[in-house]
Amino acid sequence: MTSRTNRQVLLRRRPTGLVGPDDTELVTAPAPEPADGEALVRTTYIGIDAAVRTWLDDQPGYLPPVQIGEVIRAAGIGEVVASRCDAYAVGDVVTTLTGFQEYVIVRDDVFTTPVAGTDVDQRAVMSVFGPTGATAYFGMVGVGRPAAGETVVVSAAAGATGSVAGQIAKIAGARVVGIAGGPRKCRAVVEEFGFDACIDYKRGQVAADLKEHCPRGVDVYFDNVGGEILDAVLGRLAHNARVVLCGVISSYLTGEHPGPANYVNLLAKTARMQGFNALHEWGRFDEAFAALRGWERDGLLVHREHVIDGLESCVTALNGLFTGVNIGKMLVKVSEPTSR
Amino acid sequence: MTSRTNRQVLLRRRPTGLVGPDDTELVTAPAPEPADGEALVRTTYIGIDAAVRTWLDDQPGYLPPVQIGEVIRAAGIGEVVASRCDAYAVGDVVTTLTGFQEYVIVRDDVFTTPVAGTDVDQRAVMSVFGPTGATAYFGMVGVGRPAAGETVVVSAAAGATGSVAGQIAKIAGARVVGIAGGPRKCRAVVEEFGFDACIDYKRGQVAADLKEHCPRGVDVYFDNVGGEILDAVLGRLAHNARVVLCGVISSYLTGEHPGPANYVNLLAKTARMQGFNALHEWGRFDEAFAALRGWERDGLLVHREHVIDGLESCVTALNGLFTGVNIGKMLVKVSEPTSR
Repeated sequence: MTSRTNRQVLLRRRPTGLVGPDDTELVTAPAPEPADGEALVRTTYIGIDAAVRTWLDDQPGYLPPVQIGEVIRAAGIGEVVASRCDAYAVGDVVTTLTGFQEYVIVRDDVFTTPVAGTDVDQRAVMSVFGPTGATAYFGMVGVGRPAAGETVVVSAAAGATGSVAGQIAKIAGARVVGIAGGPRKCRAVVEEFGFDACIDYKRGQVAADLKEHCPRGVDVYFDNVGGEILDAVLGRLAHNARVVLCGVISSYLTGEHPGPANYVNLLAKTARMQGFNALHEWGRFDEAFAALRGWERDGLLVHREHVIDGLESCVTALNGLFTGVNIGKMLVKVSEPTSR
Repeated sequence: MTSRTNRQVLLRRRPTGLVGPDDTELVTAPAPEPADGEALVRTTYIGIDAAVRTWLDDQPGYLPPVQIGEVIRAAGIGEVVASRCDAYAVGDVVTTLTGFQEYVIVRDDVFTTPVAGTDVDQRAVMSVFGPTGATAYFGMVGVGRPAAGETVVVSAAAGATGSVAGQIAKIAGARVVGIAGGPRKCRAVVEEFGFDACIDYKRGQVAADLKEHCPRGVDVYFDNVGGEILDAVLGRLAHNARVVLCGVISSYLTGEHPGPANYVNLLAKTARMQGFNALHEWGRFDEAFAALRGWERDGLLVHREHVIDGLESCVTALNGLFTGVNIGKMLVKVSEPTSR
């Protein structure tokens, strides 16, 4: 057993807005030794999700807030380097709640999933063949249910979830319109992810642009942002529309989420707005991955990652989500993967 | 053929807030003669629904606005007094869009339904065995879907739709909490309609009262009012809750409907908010009426009407909906029914 050091990013103070320099601390501790029933994982990539920012607030959610002094929670991927349990062998690749750290102890629990195969593209697992892809899949296929010929709108369309969700709607035969910030992202949404059009919300005329691009109304809206954009799309719903609530990124920095006055359109259009959490579909993730891998094989689904190097970049990467840095999945590369 | 006069209430000016004295005019015209394919109906009762007020605004909805100079639209019931069509014989009782008038021409169309039976309780048809009852039925059974042991909240619980919707939830085995304005209504909701409890929103502490009466959260919310009350209930949702949007009476006088900030709870609780319109279930109304009549026969369902006499009282009755006059269905009696 070699003696390993474990660099970790701890929460020192609850941030207001973007995470500031005094809100976190990078520390170095000895890596833990696995006890009976445990294994030790070396983190390769950490996924930078908007949800991470919500866990830094003292608000109850589907997971408890990160406490002051704790490692910042995040979903990541890594390789088993020591094992004292039957579930994982040394060399296995697993996704788990790595947190912002180089090593993490795992058990045979719901948050840890072995990744099948010997030549695993770990970045692709993080961006599409893992929880992010499952979120896009179950949100679009299970809740949005687009039919051929329908109009689907996806916000944060250049992001990890939105870019996959929109491609799934295209595969279902829908006309798909993205919403993203700035010409660079809008170009990627159309040219790379194959959406039919993309509205640049920074032009400040989302309602008018929606009218132009969705002349028959919006049948499915996959919402990652909330706020004014949600309100604008609610004002443009078609009859029997489905609004999939996946995230409220517009409110994560402020904690404020103005109510959408156009919710009354749900009544006028006999439409439905539904929140969902892919974790509730845990037992069916294999179904999602099989579909997603099939589509990729058939050339119908692309994925993209924005990778930043080094554990010390985690906070920068997290803030970057909110300042519009990434196209596709934001990842921090912590160590070199063996498998790919 | 006797010569009949037809008193009518016409829209003269679009009201702001409550309907004022100069907004309508009571006129007397000759009753029309039915042409081929038509019948003439003598109105007995006019149903006073909140929707009537929305049709006076120049806003598109599921029906077009009433135009200046037109008879104010409303759903009512009456008896056929002359017929030149196969669908209706003299003496038949029909529900139709009578409007605020003593006589109306009907055709064989979707808005006109013959009422079966020779000894018809016309008031009961208006309050529960007609579109109002169908609205409560399809909203609660089809969209809300309460299960035994769940907690159901109904706003405007003393009103025509809410009082029936809550009783349907009780029949399904749910614990049912009403929301109504003032102790007189709250007492009726519990003692007459059999709800388990009723919150008086005029006490100004709906959120705290919901916490007390719904300790495990709200599984189904049947919303007739929108506004602050909707927001308060959204703040109290249980996991996988269903919010049934049936009306927004809080906004009908002002045209303003503040967005409910707690809509984000739909995401946190993976809940669903859905608008519906019973007219979309037109072809299944008989199913609703059979169920409702069966429950009444078994002593599980009561109904109540607040009846005001005389066509000239229609506007007073309509305003009364918004000032809190009625318990149960608000009706204007225009002429004596033959059948009962």
